[in-house]
Amino acid sequence: MPKKYTLFTPGPTEVPDYIYQVMSEPLVYHREQAFAELFDSVGERIKKLLKTKNPVYFLTASGTGAMESAVSNLVSYRERVVIAACGKFGQRWNELCIRYGAYIDDLSVPYGKSVPPEELERRLRTDDAARYVFTTLTETSTGALQDMKAFGEICRRNNRILIVDAVAGLGADKLKMDEWNIDVVCGASQKALFCPPGLSFIAVNERAWEIMQKTRSPRYYFDLKLYKQFAEKGQTPWTPAISLFFALDCALERILKTGVEKVWEKHRLLAESLRAKLSKLGLEFMPEKPSNALTVIKMPEGINGTQIVEIAKTKKKILFANGQAEMRGKIVRIGHMGAFSRSDINRAFSVFKDAYTQVKKKRKVR
Amino acid sequence: MPKKYTLFTPGPTEVPDYIYQVMSEPLVYHREQAFAELFDSVGERIKKLLKTKNPVYFLTASGTGAMESAVSNLVSYRERVVIAACGKFGQRWNELCIRYGAYIDDLSVPYGKSVPPEELERRLRTDDAARYVFTTLTETSTGALQDMKAFGEICRRNNRILIVDAVAGLGADKLKMDEWNIDVVCGASQKALFCPPGLSFIAVNERAWEIMQKTRSPRYYFDLKLYKQFAEKGQTPWTPAISLFFALDCALERILKTGVEKVWEKHRLLAESLRAKLSKLGLEFMPEKPSNALTVIKMPEGINGTQIVEIAKTKKKILFANGQAEMRGKIVRIGHMGAFSRSDINRAFSVFKDAYTQVKKKRKVR
Repeated sequence: MPKKYTLFTPGPTEVPDYIYQVMSEPLVYHREQAFAELFDSVGERIKKLLKTKNPVYFLTASGTGAMESAVSNLVSYRERVVIAACGKFGQRWNELCIRYGAYIDDLSVPYGKSVPPEELERRLRTDDAARYVFTTLTETSTGALQDMKAFGEICRRNNRILIVDAVAGLGADKLKMDEWNIDVVCGASQKALFCPPGLSFIAVNERAWEIMQKTRSPRYYFDLKLYKQFAEKGQTPWTPAISLFFALDCALERILKTGVEKVWEKHRLLAESLRAKLSKLGLEFMPEKPSNALTVIKMPEGINGTQIVEIAKTKKKILFANGQAEMRGKIVRIGHMGAFSRSDINRAFSVFKDAYTQVKKKRKVR
Repeated sequence: MPKKYTLFTPGPTEVPDYIYQVMSEPLVYHREQAFAELFDSVGERIKKLLKTKNPVYFLTASGTGAMESAVSNLVSYRERVVIAACGKFGQRWNELCIRYGAYIDDLSVPYGKSVPPEELERRLRTDDAARYVFTTLTETSTGALQDMKAFGEICRRNNRILIVDAVAGLGADKLKMDEWNIDVVCGASQKALFCPPGLSFIAVNERAWEIMQKTRSPRYYFDLKLYKQFAEKGQTPWTPAISLFFALDCALERILKTGVEKVWEKHRLLAESLRAKLSKLGLEFMPEKPSNALTVIKMPEGINGTQIVEIAKTKKKILFANGQAEMRGKIVRIGHMGAFSRSDINRAFSVFKDAYTQVKKKRKVR
């Protein structure tokens, strides 16, 4: 078996033992009443987390699959879209929309920034033809949070469809689908919902659903019309990842028992306590407006983040995440979405601190 | 928790405890060396099962996802395809190809039949324009097996690309990808590989890969070029269903330890022993050429299969599968692909027999 580390990566995150336990329950057959009950239970629970009355469709796929289902069910060839991106995962919307032949109006901001709502408003007024706004709640490549409440208000007022990738933030950062006028939300099992990866979901409101009836892009596995049709029987069109349904149902039960607001608050407190400690080391953070799901630390001049990640991994069996692509070595990312406690965060901090001090000392010696 | 039954459904099948156990191993991070080792191990093992030297790409999706990846990576708008279908799952190729704008030459046979190889040859000679043949190894809606060796020989000789849905048959029915000249094979975790559903895979040979470079159909989540690129690092482009990788690696290790040929032989012996017993009850079977993965029993006049399924379920907690759509009530399907033993099969038979006798008696009384 491969070596194991405690994951402080920004997804997947650590999965508690009680989740593994329900995943070991014998499978139910997906065309059978027992599955329909499970399906309905997860469905009702996820709505409460999303603060929505809209239907939510479950896809046996990772988060990118849910994102593709948003694009392929909404965007027809040569339609125009605005993409409000603030990092690697925002750019994924871009790549997806290109594949489906959309004309892209790219409203990107530099790494670490969030798209200012007033910029979005300005862009929508200039770009009459763009029908959709694709964006990201929590950008895990930089740790930035974006203002979905403001985006929702602007999109509704300007009669655009707002599609939010909430994969990394959902359950950690505040999100109120209906109250905030969000038309489509994508999420997945392996982030703040502390399940293994492999199950994702998409919530769709009536405005977005109407458009989906006329979309001409080819799709089958991700065709939400089929999901809607089967949902009436408590089923999915294709064989679902049944054990992950067990897992997600259990995780959501826990979250709802605590209360969604309290879970958000827990994430905020953990994030702030970690950042307070890191600040005392004189460290600064990548995002201007940080998410509560992860902390992204800028490496001071001469400090290579890759070495810190490596020391934590080999010496302490703790896995932080490096920066992606051009951010490699320049930042260290600590994920704390999901089932983490204060003592977990303290442990992560102390391991980070030791590794950081070690790397810093070596720099001084040279 | 929902009520649980022993699954004699034609997928998902019963998952042994040791598989659940490895699924409970803490997750590894998918951008990390430990995952790459797992990835390489599963990759090498699946090739041995498929009897191929070709690369195999793993998709976090159920079998239909692997089928869509075959279609969207091969077929461009307005290309012509032959579909050699013998049931519901063969028709899925049809639906998929329609979505991607293909012109379809439908070579279907009635339920219970398999497409005769000579029919395929005749069709290919008539239809010069069709570049691809999509077909099914094991048709779970009817229990029919198709002759992939002959199909492969015909397609290679006529210079066509052969794409085989082996989801239900792989590991139960004989399949030799390279020796039999099969260009693309799709498979999934939840059938004869006795893992939970949620992970599928697609093997692609050089001939098919060349075509995929030029395909114009939109795709992203299922774009095999991205999978190839990431496979070089021992990774998948999107967060994979990590726990199912653990499961599949373990299942394949077991299968290979026994030996692929012996596992096929085990399935053949179990299937034949079950059918011998059923024949003694005077029962007949749906498929002319039956697969070793499942047994599909025709219901005699006046016997409603739905009642048999219902009795087995409520009285014995055993789940058989009913016929789909217009076959409902007219057949009963018993899945025996995967980790079944002779005593499991005997149990299935005895439960079936009791239920069948009960329903038959009631018929006589009326």
